[in-house]
Amino acid sequence: MELWFTEYTNKTSGITIKIKRQLDHRVSEFQTIDVFETHYYGNLMVIDGYIMLTEFDEFVYHENLTHVPAQFLQNPEKALIIGGGDGGTARELLKYPSIKKIDMIEIDREVCEVSKLYFKNLSVSFKDPRLNLHYEDGAKFVKNRTESYDLIVIDSTDPVGPGEVLFTEEFYNNCSKILKTGGILTAQTESPFDKEYINPIRQIYKNLRKSFNYVSMYLGHIPTYPFGTWSFAFASNWVDPLKSEIKNSYLPEGLRYYNRELGKSIFTLPNFVKEIIDE
Amino acid sequence: MELWFTEYTNKTSGITIKIKRQLDHRVSEFQTIDVFETHYYGNLMVIDGYIMLTEFDEFVYHENLTHVPAQFLQNPEKALIIGGGDGGTARELLKYPSIKKIDMIEIDREVCEVSKLYFKNLSVSFKDPRLNLHYEDGAKFVKNRTESYDLIVIDSTDPVGPGEVLFTEEFYNNCSKILKTGGILTAQTESPFDKEYINPIRQIYKNLRKSFNYVSMYLGHIPTYPFGTWSFAFASNWVDPLKSEIKNSYLPEGLRYYNRELGKSIFTLPNFVKEIIDE
Repeated sequence: MELWFTEYTNKTSGITIKIKRQLDHRVSEFQTIDVFETHYYGNLMVIDGYIMLTEFDEFVYHENLTHVPAQFLQNPEKALIIGGGDGGTARELLKYPSIKKIDMIEIDREVCEVSKLYFKNLSVSFKDPRLNLHYEDGAKFVKNRTESYDLIVIDSTDPVGPGEVLFTEEFYNNCSKILKTGGILTAQTESPFDKEYINPIRQIYKNLRKSFNYVSMYLGHIPTYPFGTWSFAFASNWVDPLKSEIKNSYLPEGLRYYNRELGKSIFTLPNFVKEIIDE
Repeated sequence: MELWFTEYTNKTSGITIKIKRQLDHRVSEFQTIDVFETHYYGNLMVIDGYIMLTEFDEFVYHENLTHVPAQFLQNPEKALIIGGGDGGTARELLKYPSIKKIDMIEIDREVCEVSKLYFKNLSVSFKDPRLNLHYEDGAKFVKNRTESYDLIVIDSTDPVGPGEVLFTEEFYNNCSKILKTGGILTAQTESPFDKEYINPIRQIYKNLRKSFNYVSMYLGHIPTYPFGTWSFAFASNWVDPLKSEIKNSYLPEGLRYYNRELGKSIFTLPNFVKEIIDE
């Protein structure tokens, strides 16, 4: 018997992955979660039919979302993660001794439960006392928050369906209000090769520019995400990554993707990508 | 009816593409060539079951293989292309008014014929009188050549099967001998995410370093190649891309990927890639 999982993009292409066995299937209050053991990619988490992460390449996504901003900060102490229920984003931020507290706002407790069972290399972060897990709606949390943060990381699903609110002008404005002076926000912002996302991506960056002085995009190579290329937004009212220098005196050891040269040059974009977001 | 083409990598994952119709199928002296019209990627050329190019993302591959080296040269006049039968690499180099002559050594005439029929945006280069097409074995051509070049571009198939000879120490040494003073060689060198290619890639760079003083790798985002990430080698006895400046006074207009900032920063690699090629 051969078992294959296939994720289709735009109904016209897809990635197909050979499966050893299905490890979990559950329907939460918010979504359907599946976990597979694969031949090449280690364990694979699928939400509503879309690949969320694999053990093989999650390091690219999580290191990009965290170290790129964290290295521009001198001593980041407080971080807010919206989403990120698998624990990978928290794991990377917890590598900084300067980090004293992380609030992580995951709407779906089941994602964390699944990660504890099948993604121990990510959910290891749940054991760190500096991490405070809140099972709440991220948009509401940010709207009502008065406490402020050095770093906000939006580790969300796509801007269609329940995740849509996390890409709006209002949400970004509320995030901007709870950033400390000097603070930075990063977010995942889809693939620039996806024709159906060109306009949504353009809108995301327009929305960000209404609340932040400096908004830049950077790209990562993520094989199991559509088109193998993923984009991230970097937004701040104080830090322009095109001109600022790396300020963090600490660089975690053992990173597999991020290094400081890359953390600067990663903001240099191909022409077709610049054309999407340039105003 | 739905028609899908699937290319499997390592028998454990693959990319699957929805097809409108098959445009061509022919068996040449060297390989099997198929052409499909797709829904998302325009026309698709497949050789021996592997995706060679699509109209959607061929610009990434061809611009990277050519402008990255050409911009480090003041006035490149003579170029040698090994392979490249679709015409895309020649198309990019012919954008430079300084280019007076290109020798292109394609072993399989049928690839050029197919490109003339279904990839007119690439085979347009065949009409330029500066392009000299030789239907020969690239390795033999280079071995017997005495004429020398400012730029050599190895636009080959994979280092398994007939293309293997184009990755050997002897071939690179022969290339090195016919580079003019100041000249540069580039080559496609597979995906660093492919576990089965980690050792072959390491060997390719070891081989290159035996014939060239400066050997660097750079990466491109190519959705329809395995893992969506492709690597390229830059080799020269005179130009170190990590330290040299862009010297070409001419930059072609309308490029969709390459720009000069990217042409410098593209040599900054993720840690896991550096580990493959660092000695």
